[in-house]
This record gives sequence, C-alpha cells and structure tokens, in this order.
Amino acid sequence: MSNVYEEALKKHAQWQGKIETKVVCEVNNAEDLTLAYTPGVAQPCREIHQDLKNVYKYTGKGKTVAVITDGTAVLGLGDIGPEAALPVMEGKCVLFKRFADVNAVPICLDTKDPKEIIAICKALAPAFGGFNLEDISAPRCVEIERTLKKELNIPVFHDDQHGTAICVTAALINALKVVNKKAEDITVVVSGTGAAGSSIIHMLKDFGVKEIYGFNINGIVLKADKEKYDFLTQELCEITNSENKRLSMAEALKEADVFVGVSAPKLLNKEMVAGMKRDPIIFAMANPEPEITVDEALAGGARVVGTGRSDFPNQVNNVLAFPGLFKGALSVRATKITEEMKMAAARGIASLISDEELNENYVIPSAFDPRVADMVAAKVAEVALASGVAQKAE
Amino acid sequence: MSNVYEEALKKHAQWQGKIETKVVCEVNNAEDLTLAYTPGVAQPCREIHQDLKNVYKYTGKGKTVAVITDGTAVLGLGDIGPEAALPVMEGKCVLFKRFADVNAVPICLDTKDPKEIIAICKALAPAFGGFNLEDISAPRCVEIERTLKKELNIPVFHDDQHGTAICVTAALINALKVVNKKAEDITVVVSGTGAAGSSIIHMLKDFGVKEIYGFNINGIVLKADKEKYDFLTQELCEITNSENKRLSMAEALKEADVFVGVSAPKLLNKEMVAGMKRDPIIFAMANPEPEITVDEALAGGARVVGTGRSDFPNQVNNVLAFPGLFKGALSVRATKITEEMKMAAARGIASLISDEELNENYVIPSAFDPRVADMVAAKVAEVALASGVAQKAE
Repeated sequence: MSNVYEEALKKHAQWQGKIETKVVCEVNNAEDLTLAYTPGVAQPCREIHQDLKNVYKYTGKGKTVAVITDGTAVLGLGDIGPEAALPVMEGKCVLFKRFADVNAVPICLDTKDPKEIIAICKALAPAFGGFNLEDISAPRCVEIERTLKKELNIPVFHDDQHGTAICVTAALINALKVVNKKAEDITVVVSGTGAAGSSIIHMLKDFGVKEIYGFNINGIVLKADKEKYDFLTQELCEITNSENKRLSMAEALKEADVFVGVSAPKLLNKEMVAGMKRDPIIFAMANPEPEITVDEALAGGARVVGTGRSDFPNQVNNVLAFPGLFKGALSVRATKITEEMKMAAARGIASLISDEELNENYVIPSAFDPRVADMVAAKVAEVALASGVAQKAE
Repeated sequence: MSNVYEEALKKHAQWQGKIETKVVCEVNNAEDLTLAYTPGVAQPCREIHQDLKNVYKYTGKGKTVAVITDGTAVLGLGDIGPEAALPVMEGKCVLFKRFADVNAVPICLDTKDPKEIIAICKALAPAFGGFNLEDISAPRCVEIERTLKKELNIPVFHDDQHGTAICVTAALINALKVVNKKAEDITVVVSGTGAAGSSIIHMLKDFGVKEIYGFNINGIVLKADKEKYDFLTQELCEITNSENKRLSMAEALKEADVFVGVSAPKLLNKEMVAGMKRDPIIFAMANPEPEITVDEALAGGARVVGTGRSDFPNQVNNVLAFPGLFKGALSVRATKITEEMKMAAARGIASLISDEELNENYVIPSAFDPRVADMVAAKVAEVALASGVAQKAE
C-alpha cells in the first residue's frame, strides 16, 4: 500500500492540478473577441437580466457543479483543513467530468461555521447548477445540507451521506436476488451511524427492510438512550430497533440477514458471520481495511461479500452514483435531489446486471462500466419529471 | 452593431458555457483511480496538512484564479445581478486561459454587501491562487479590493480599476515618445473618476505626470469641494489640480497635453482638441462610443488617438494586462499585486514596440500579439522578486 501513496504523490507533483480550464469558444481574432466578450456578450447578459431562466440557455451554469468542503472530515484523515482537502476535491471533479461529462469546480472553504458555510453556498448559487457537499464532518454536514436543500432551488447533495447509501441499496437489491430473500423479511445490522450510516439506514428503511439495528461507538442505537444522542442518531431511534433491544453486535447479528459496515476495521470475525441467518450478505466498507476481510467473511459462510476496494469483487463505489445522479438532475433542471431520485439511481445501477449475469461475485457493476452514468441519469431524470421537481422536459 | 449582438446571442446558445472542465490525469482503470483518487490521494492531503505551502506543489491552486463579481456594474449595463453577469465572467475566464494559460473559475455572488463579499472571498481563498474582481460598482469595489489585499496572502486585483490604468500608461509611454514629451512636463485631463478613472490618475501620478485634472459628472475635482466627495474622489484631491482651479473641461484642456476618457460618448469636440497644447494625445475609451470619434479628434489636430475599439488603431484593451499580470504573479507566488508590479506590466507592454516600429498609429501592441502575456509575466515576476513580495523564485 505504501507504493500507492508514493506513486500518487509523484503523480500529483507532475499534474500540479488534476483539472484545468478548457476554452470551448474560438478566440483567434478581434471578431471572435467581439462575440465571446465585449461588446457582443452584452446581449446574453441582457436576456438573462430580463428572464433569469435564460442563464441556463446562454451559460454553463446548468452543466456545472461546485464540489464544496470545509476540510473537516477528509477521507479517514479527519479535520485536515481546506487546503489539504483540495486534492480530494479535485479528484471528485475529475470523476464528475470523466464519468458523466459534468463540469465541476473545487471549493475549499476556510470556515467551519455551519451558518457561514450555508450563507456562502447560497451566495455562490448563481453560477452553479448544483452543489456536491463533500467531506464535511457529521452531524454538521446534515444541518448544512438540509438547510441548503430547503433554501436553494438547485440540487444539493452530500455525497458522503447519500452516495454510499445509493450504492449499498443497489448492491443489496441484487444480493437479495442471489439469496432469494425479500426486503420486507430481512434484518440488517448497520455498523456506523454517522453521515453515511444514517443515510444508509434511512434509505434501507425506505426500501422496505423489516428491521434494522444501528451500531456506533457507544453500542446499539435504542430509544431508551435517545436523550444522549445528537439529532442525527435521535432520528434513527424512530426507524431502527423497533423492540428497543439492548443487544451486542454479536447478538444482533444472530438475527441478521445482512451486515453493512461504514465504520472501522476488524469489527467482525468469522464466528459472528457464521452465527447470522442463512446465506449472510456482508458489505464491509471501512476503507482501506474493511470490517472483516473478504476471505474471513467467506470462511464464516457469507454468501455475498462487498467492500469499498477495487481489488475484490462487488466494489461498492460512490462513483457509480453521484456523476449520473447530477447528470440526470441537471438534464431536467431538478430543483432538488429527492428520496425518490436516490432510489431511482439505486434501481438503475442494480438493473444493469441481468438475471443471467447475476451471481454472488457480481451484484454491482464495475465503476468503469460505461453504461452506469447514463442509466442512472435517465432513471433520475424520469423520476424528477414524474414527481414535479423538474423545471424542464429532458 | 445589432448584428454583433444577434450573432453573439446565437453563439452563446450554441456554446452553453464558454469554458468547461478538462481532466488532466488519466482515469481509465481501477489503478488510475487509486492514484488520482482514493486511497492514493490521501498522501498529497497529508503532505499539505503538514506544510500548507505544499498545496502549490500538489494541486492546481497556484495556476487558478477566481473571477469574482456581484453583478452590480456589468459592462455598461449596470446592476443586472449575478446570473446576468455570468456570460461576462465566463468570457473573462476564456481570456485568462487563452492569453496566459491561467485557469479561471467564474464566481457570481448573490450578495451586494461589501462585508459579506469580503468574508466570502476570504473563505474561498484556499483553492485559488488569486482573485480577479470584476464589474463590482464603485466605490464599493475599492473598499473590497483594499481590504482583501490587506487580509489575504494571494494576489487580488480589480481589473476595472487597474487593468485600464496599466494599458493607458503603456500607451502613454509610447505616445510621449512619438510627440517627444516627458511625463514630468505634461498635463493630463482625465474624464471619469470612478473605478477606472481614479486608478488611472493614481498610476499616471506614480508615472511622474506633472499635473492632472480629474473630471466627473459634477465637473472638475478640487480640494474646495472635498467634503462633498466619496472617499475615492477625496483621495484624488491630494494628487490632482494642485492649484485648486475651478475650470471647465474646455478650459482645462487648454493647459493639457493629453486627454484620457473613461466616461461617456461625445464629451469632446474637435475645437476642444484644437485648443490643447501641441500634438495632442487622446485616449477616448468610453465603450462602445468614445468621448470623441477618431476622425473628429484627428480633424482637431490630435497626433495620437487611442480608443477601446478593435476597429481603429491603438486599441487600449485590458486583455493586454490582466492575463500576463496574473501569470507573472502566480509564477513567483506573489502575495499581492503592488504598484511596482502594475508599472512593470505597463512598461513591459510598451517595450514590445521598438523605436523603429513606433508611430502615431502603433503606440500599443495588438491584443493578439503573442508576445504580450509572456513579456508582462516576466516583468511582473522580476519586480515581485526584487521587491520581496514573491514567495518563490521563478
């Protein structure tokens, strides 16, 4: 692994910026200048001033997202500050462009005050078609995202919350087919109830899962302890652990069909997997070291195992979701990303694997499957149009 | 002229954004992803976290500027709002990239409060190597620029103030050679004392001009009226009209060698030009209609005439200055744009015309002269290094 880090550092020094500006229009002579700049540019300005909707017609707003962070929860590195977050934000912009032809701009904010971050994002809205929030620590990230969703009329999406949730749901849709179970019959243990974990729990509940147990560093989430929790975990009390049981993770797993981990390495062992219901499904996505190694999970009798890693089957990778999700939302000028749109994205990803192809080592398409972004975009646009959040027919 | 507007509108609808994101790194397979994104990207993040200077080494910060507006003074259109300003900001980004290979991002702020604009710019600083302020109304723009210059350690430059000043100074350097006069002997009338005019006056004074008369809608600027002025015009009282004369523009022109207009069409007539000192120099830059037509100025006896228009000789065009200025400042990581750097830019532009080539119709190079940006960048970097505002040898 140290080789990856050395090599990545060398590459970053060569690139000195993984994205740059590309000029679309010709500027070869004075006449070109009069069209792309003054005086001609005054005309699109006037048309937009007369009708704000025209900003989508005459500028790149509708094809451009801002990737916004405050650097407080960067990868697994924690609060390393906005400058140190820039390589990740540039990387995210690369993925937006590479996977869905969405233009993206890294914005690294030198403030941690949620109120200020909200005010700044609102002020930045005119030039952007959407905001992808990134690597902002929980639960602040949820407050910021929810407020912006309410107060802005462009899509706002916190990938750390919902990106993983969409991909896990996609993988689960197909994994359940492999083991021939239904959402409404299963119990899921989710380890980690921060930004990603809580969004996963909400989405799995929407998907119809019968029972969910949420775990964090303090143990199982239950109503009896509600007063001790932050607002994010408090919300989970309403949709998890319906019988308010104080279980250890090993005990909870005995009732579980599925384990979803967005937490820490080595929380699970093969005995715990062996104790689960028939044909255990394990999504162990702690990065780079999962909650249980693939080999150990299989040794414990797991039927389907997914991780966040590209060197094992079933990589649960956010890049399957966010590029196409924004592409679809932007294509119909959706004013927001709704729960229905997220679920449509998950179903779109899952649908790319036919029943014939489906097997325990192939429940989710590859990040490089060229069909993914367009499929996700199409499904998301369809639902946005049907549910009335789209401002424009595709 | 209406054709330019129609054609520009059509082109803008085709482009739908004059710039887009270009991906610099390869992302063709899982291994590429591990270098450009996780897990490899963690390494440059760590290096930057350990030493903030490394952000220049491993990211595009040092090659990227933000073009920032609040939409309050867009071209001659006034306060048309941030969305309607976006075509101009995109155009500016095109010029940065096309003329100096500087990456640029349009930022259109939905606030007019100078304090908020300052706070937002400060928060945006981590991901940008510099800020080009644009089309912000005077005198607010000056307050914003000065505060940011003081409080940030990246170059901040308000092009509407200083871009024209640099180009006028460049043109004047050469025009004075044509008429064989020296700065310290001449009197200049400047019509317009807003953002551009006041910066021109400051820069011409720095250049050594003996006497300057400033005019605005209320007539000549003079100390006796100081109490009535905004702070920007008050400053001009100290460096113009040294004998505190209450002159009409026609009267002032009788003492003048040079007229510089950044004001309104048709303020001058040929009789007024005829009344000036020998070999009048006229820079009439109101756009698109100058203070006096080139033909009328020549009929009045003007020796050198420049305008903002590309269809006449001696086009005074900001694009000669800002791309190279930022390129030079970024190349040595200058912490600010100083007066010396601006003057170096003016001298660099002027120096591209040899004594043999110099004549009344060629006192300033063409916007498309491929030598300009590099010459300006070199001169600016040299002065930045010599004056200690550079953080890095070129």
